[in-house]
Amino acid sequence: MFAARIEKLHHFMQEQKLDAVLITSPKHVYYLTGFFTDPHERFLGLVIPAQGEPSLIVPALDREAAASASDIQRIYTHTDIQNPYEVLKETLPTGLQALGIEKSHMTVERFEAMSAFVGASRFVDVEQPLREMRLIKSPDEVARMKHAIQLVEDALRESLKKVKPGVTEVEIVAELEYQMKRLGAEGPSFSTMVLAGEKSALPHGNPGSRAVQQGELLLFDLGVEADGYVSDITRTFAVGEVDGKLREIYEIVLAANEAAIAAIKPGVTFAHLDKTARDVISAKGYGEYFMHRLGHGLGMDVHEYPSVHGENQEVLRPGMVFTIEPGIYLPGLGGVRIEDNVLVTETGVEVLTKFPKEWTIIG
Amino acid sequence: MFAARIEKLHHFMQEQKLDAVLITSPKHVYYLTGFFTDPHERFLGLVIPAQGEPSLIVPALDREAAASASDIQRIYTHTDIQNPYEVLKETLPTGLQALGIEKSHMTVERFEAMSAFVGASRFVDVEQPLREMRLIKSPDEVARMKHAIQLVEDALRESLKKVKPGVTEVEIVAELEYQMKRLGAEGPSFSTMVLAGEKSALPHGNPGSRAVQQGELLLFDLGVEADGYVSDITRTFAVGEVDGKLREIYEIVLAANEAAIAAIKPGVTFAHLDKTARDVISAKGYGEYFMHRLGHGLGMDVHEYPSVHGENQEVLRPGMVFTIEPGIYLPGLGGVRIEDNVLVTETGVEVLTKFPKEWTIIG
Repeated sequence: MFAARIEKLHHFMQEQKLDAVLITSPKHVYYLTGFFTDPHERFLGLVIPAQGEPSLIVPALDREAAASASDIQRIYTHTDIQNPYEVLKETLPTGLQALGIEKSHMTVERFEAMSAFVGASRFVDVEQPLREMRLIKSPDEVARMKHAIQLVEDALRESLKKVKPGVTEVEIVAELEYQMKRLGAEGPSFSTMVLAGEKSALPHGNPGSRAVQQGELLLFDLGVEADGYVSDITRTFAVGEVDGKLREIYEIVLAANEAAIAAIKPGVTFAHLDKTARDVISAKGYGEYFMHRLGHGLGMDVHEYPSVHGENQEVLRPGMVFTIEPGIYLPGLGGVRIEDNVLVTETGVEVLTKFPKEWTIIG
Repeated sequence: MFAARIEKLHHFMQEQKLDAVLITSPKHVYYLTGFFTDPHERFLGLVIPAQGEPSLIVPALDREAAASASDIQRIYTHTDIQNPYEVLKETLPTGLQALGIEKSHMTVERFEAMSAFVGASRFVDVEQPLREMRLIKSPDEVARMKHAIQLVEDALRESLKKVKPGVTEVEIVAELEYQMKRLGAEGPSFSTMVLAGEKSALPHGNPGSRAVQQGELLLFDLGVEADGYVSDITRTFAVGEVDGKLREIYEIVLAANEAAIAAIKPGVTFAHLDKTARDVISAKGYGEYFMHRLGHGLGMDVHEYPSVHGENQEVLRPGMVFTIEPGIYLPGLGGVRIEDNVLVTETGVEVLTKFPKEWTIIG
C-alpha cells in the first residue's frame, strides 16, 4: 500500500524531472509510511529520491517508533542541538537540482533555512499528486473511516439516553466527547456542535448554556478521529412535539438528502449532486434558507478535496468519499441539517453512515 | 494599547528600511487590532505602511465584526471569487520595495501567490519584534491571563468533587472540560491530562480508561483559553494514603517549585531558575528523574518564548509570564509535577496561580 503510494510520487517526479521529493507534513508522512508523529517545532521529513530508497528524518526520540511503524529502512535522527537541514542534505541525492516540496505546508521560514542547505535551484509543489491520491480511498482507508463512523454513531446513541428537557448544550457536548474517548476514538475531529431550539438555525453556532426545552429541535454535528481518519455526521431530532413547520422542513431536508444520495454514481458531477438537493428544497420554497454547499470531501481531514458545490464540474469516481449535508435554517425558529458520509462505488453509492434519519422524537 | 504596539512595528520598519508590514496570522492581527477571526483557508491581512494608516483585509463575511472590534478605519473585503492579493496590492504603498512578513506563519504557497502581485524585492521576517512585544505582558494581558487561570482553577475545584476510586481518567477529563465551558472558557488550551497511578510517571501520557484507585497519585495538567489568552496548571493529589516514597517526592518537588519561585526577580537568568529547582531535586538523589525543562513562556500560546531551561542566559524582566513546573517521575510507581504561572514584577514575582499546593488527599 505504502509502496504503491510512493510509486505514484515517482511518476510525478519523472513528469516534473525532479531529483527527489521532500515530505514534511505529519499527515503525509503517515500516509506514505504508516508512521505518525507530531514533531511540534522539530523537523520531520521523508525524502523520496528519484533513484534509490526513501529516508525518514525524525527527532531522536522518535527513532524506535518510526522503525516499528514503517517499512522505511533508512532512518536518520537529529537532536535539539543539531541542525536538521545538515542531516537532510546528507540524505538527498548529490548534485540535486529540482526538489518537490509541500508548498502549502512548509513555511517561508523553514523554506529559507532548508533551501540554504540543499542547494536545489527549482522547487515544485507536490500537493497535486498527493491530493489526487487521497481523493480515491483504498479499501484500508474506507475500513478506517467506517470505524470512525461507527465510533461517532455509538457515542451519539449512548449520549441521546441522557438528553431531556433542562440539560444544556455544553452538558451534552461533554457527554458526547466522553463517550467518544471511552469507545476508543482519539477525540472529536472538530468542535462538537449541539444546538437547541432557535440556535439550530445557525449553521456555525456555538454550544452554550442554553438548556434543551420541550417542543424544539436539537441539532447534533459531530465526528471523531481514529487511526488517522475522521467521520462527520449531522442528525436533527425533535424534543417532544414541535411546530408543524419544523416537521415540514425536516421532511424536505430528508428528501433532499435522499435525492442527492440516489443520484450518486461514477460519471455524474458534483454540481449535479448539489443541484439535485437544492432543487428539492427550492421546489418547496425554501431555497434561500439553504445557504451553504451540499458537502465536502472527507478522509484524513474533515474538510478535504473535493468540494461538493454547484460550480464543481468534476465527475465522481469510485473510491471518493464525501459528505451530503443539505439544510434549511429558519431564523428565530430552528434549523434542520441531515449529513451522511458516502462512498462512490463502481455502480453507485455506499452510504457509510448508518444512524437512522427518519423523524425521531427524543427526550 | 493597539496604537503603541503598531508604533513598535514602525520602529522596526525604520530600522529595517521597510515600506510596509503585512501581518497574516490571526493571533497577531488580534494582538495588533483587537479583531479576531479564524479565516480558515481564506486570506486575512493587516497592512501597516511606513507612512499613513493601517488597513485590514478580511473575508466579506467578517466586515462588520472587524469594524466593531477594531479601530482600523480602512477595512477592505474580498469574496470567494475575488483574488485577495489584488485587494492587497491596492492597499500597499505604491513603489513598494521592502515588505515585512510573518515568515514562520506564511506558507511557501501563499508567499508565491502574494509576491507575484505585490512586486517587492525584499521580504523581512517580523517575528522578532512581535516576539519581543509579546514577551512583556501589559496590565490588560495580565488581567486576561488571571481570568483564564481563575477559570481553570474553578473547573479543577468543581471537578475534584466527583473524583473517587473507580472513576476513570477520561471521565474526569470530560467533567473538567464540561466545567471549563460552563464557567465561560472557550475551551481547553491543550489536551487535558489526567493520569492515575503509575501513569502519572509519564510526562506525556494520555488519559484512558484507567480507573482511579485508592493509594495512588492522580496528576492533573490542564488549562483554558479565554479572550485570546491561556492558563496552564499542574497539580498532583493523593487518593487516600499512599506509599511513603510518593509523599517524599511530592515534598521535594514542592520545595523545588518554591525555591525556583523565590529566586524570581528582574536580572536573574532563566538558567539560574532551572538550576535552582534542579539543585533541590538532585540534592535528594532524584536528579535523573526530572528530565524536562523547568518551564515555558505563556500568553496567547501555551508554549511561547521564552524557554525556561538550563542553557537560557536571557535575564528576567518585569512583565514576563511563564510556568514553573518541576517534576519527579518514578517509572512504574508514579510521578509528581507542580506547575504554577508566574509574573515577573519590578521587585520580584507575583504567583498568578492560586490553587493550594500543599500535600492533599482526595477521593
